[in-house]
Amino acid sequence: MDIKNVMQADKKLIEDRLMELMNINLTYSSKILDSMRYSLSAGGKRIRPCIFVEVLKSYNIDVKKYLDVACVIEMIHTYSLIHDDLPAMDNDTLRRGKPTNHMVYGDAIAILAGDALLNFAYELLFKFIKNNFQINSVKACEEISNCAGIYGMIGGQVSDIINENKDISSGNLEYIHENKTAKLIIASMVSAGYLANADENDMEHLRKYAYNLGMAFQISDDILDIIGNEKLLGKSVGKDVDEGKNTYPKYFGIEKSKEKLNGYVNSAIDEISEIKDKDMSFFAQLATYIGNRKY
Amino acid sequence: MDIKNVMQADKKLIEDRLMELMNINLTYSSKILDSMRYSLSAGGKRIRPCIFVEVLKSYNIDVKKYLDVACVIEMIHTYSLIHDDLPAMDNDTLRRGKPTNHMVYGDAIAILAGDALLNFAYELLFKFIKNNFQINSVKACEEISNCAGIYGMIGGQVSDIINENKDISSGNLEYIHENKTAKLIIASMVSAGYLANADENDMEHLRKYAYNLGMAFQISDDILDIIGNEKLLGKSVGKDVDEGKNTYPKYFGIEKSKEKLNGYVNSAIDEISEIKDKDMSFFAQLATYIGNRKY
Repeated sequence: MDIKNVMQADKKLIEDRLMELMNINLTYSSKILDSMRYSLSAGGKRIRPCIFVEVLKSYNIDVKKYLDVACVIEMIHTYSLIHDDLPAMDNDTLRRGKPTNHMVYGDAIAILAGDALLNFAYELLFKFIKNNFQINSVKACEEISNCAGIYGMIGGQVSDIINENKDISSGNLEYIHENKTAKLIIASMVSAGYLANADENDMEHLRKYAYNLGMAFQISDDILDIIGNEKLLGKSVGKDVDEGKNTYPKYFGIEKSKEKLNGYVNSAIDEISEIKDKDMSFFAQLATYIGNRKY
Repeated sequence: MDIKNVMQADKKLIEDRLMELMNINLTYSSKILDSMRYSLSAGGKRIRPCIFVEVLKSYNIDVKKYLDVACVIEMIHTYSLIHDDLPAMDNDTLRRGKPTNHMVYGDAIAILAGDALLNFAYELLFKFIKNNFQINSVKACEEISNCAGIYGMIGGQVSDIINENKDISSGNLEYIHENKTAKLIIASMVSAGYLANADENDMEHLRKYAYNLGMAFQISDDILDIIGNEKLLGKSVGKDVDEGKNTYPKYFGIEKSKEKLNGYVNSAIDEISEIKDKDMSFFAQLATYIGNRKY
């Protein structure tokens, strides 16, 4: 299996459905749809919904039935990028090689497009629960919402922002990376686990794999912000240092950060190997890929 | 019945529960909780959750069981005010007589506090569905989410903002008021109707009452922004004209706007009177109160 081909196929599946879901007409407020679609179609690897889809496949579940939940996770990720890029936050003008949302639509519409994507994600989840009325549907949605809020992604972003240009403890640094980045990857994995009716033992390994993969993902992002290629990454590098962000390289230096990255990659592989009666080879390869990525 | 006493009692019930729900500790990101609590405790009449509570009471339902849903509606309303007040949006420095959220916590935290309140609202709703696992719980939550997003409040806000200092059709003006304001009042009424297992006939009258009350509420707001008392209102007046907002007085003049206001008030009373086997007197009085309010 070449995971790049698998990811490419999943990406197409997800992007097609995303555009179907956004095939909406609004007479008096169509501008918000343009702004939402602009950021949703800005590309990227779609790694979170791809993980969700691959968990379902490992459990031999029909992916199409749950594709909207995959799209919801991408919508939540996208809203967070739009708000992150705002002048009041990270003030980024470029994202994946394209002007950021507020550069095209203005700050007001960018704020509202973020709000609208977050809200629309939950509109879709309630509809999903109504059409798939079982308790595990609710648990999957609850996991996603908890991982996206103050106990997850938003909590991490807040700690990230209020500690710019400050020295923090390693515990705080870990908190930021776990919450800012790993939580939404945990959400992708665990929500799919619920929908696949995975047993408790599997759920624990899925959760721990996702945690380790998420940490590896953010540390590799930190490293690439220093040694990465701007053109291949499709975004500015060196921003973390400019903004006084707390990163693993800042705290531990590049070499020690690479060691930490490898540690998380290996732990992720160990965790997923514990699920022995399913083909989880995609996830072992994904962890290796994250450990080695150059852009 | 003096509806002011009833509303005061509901307000206390809701505010007590809001503060219980926000009794949270976060080691590394407690600032977001301060910011969320600041806006949640800024007062106001709590008219949306009060309407929700009063529908349940009319149907002899134990309000306590559903109080978290009432709080969710207030959280959604509060997040929208925080984002509305931002410099990139309406740029308001004063709300209910107190500095707005971003004046106290800065723009970045204010954006994240809004995001966090919206997300937390949905976290609570999934937990609510899990603990009250029946299809009408889902329908109630779906109604709230639909009324808050692009098909409701956000749609209205977008059209409001993009049409500042422009001449629009009366249809567009109606769209703005219906979506910006009436939809969340419809959500309060209709979600409570679902939870009370109201029949289809009642649901229709609850929905139409809420629509008319919501329109009346926004038109009276428009009028008070011109002739109201700043001190009693607890906010600046004359802002609508300054910002080139499309209001009923701008379009129809004050006298015609008052006529329209009375029309919506009377329609609301007509609708609620159609529910004959329940005591709906609170709602008739509420409509009259909105029609007569001076601040």
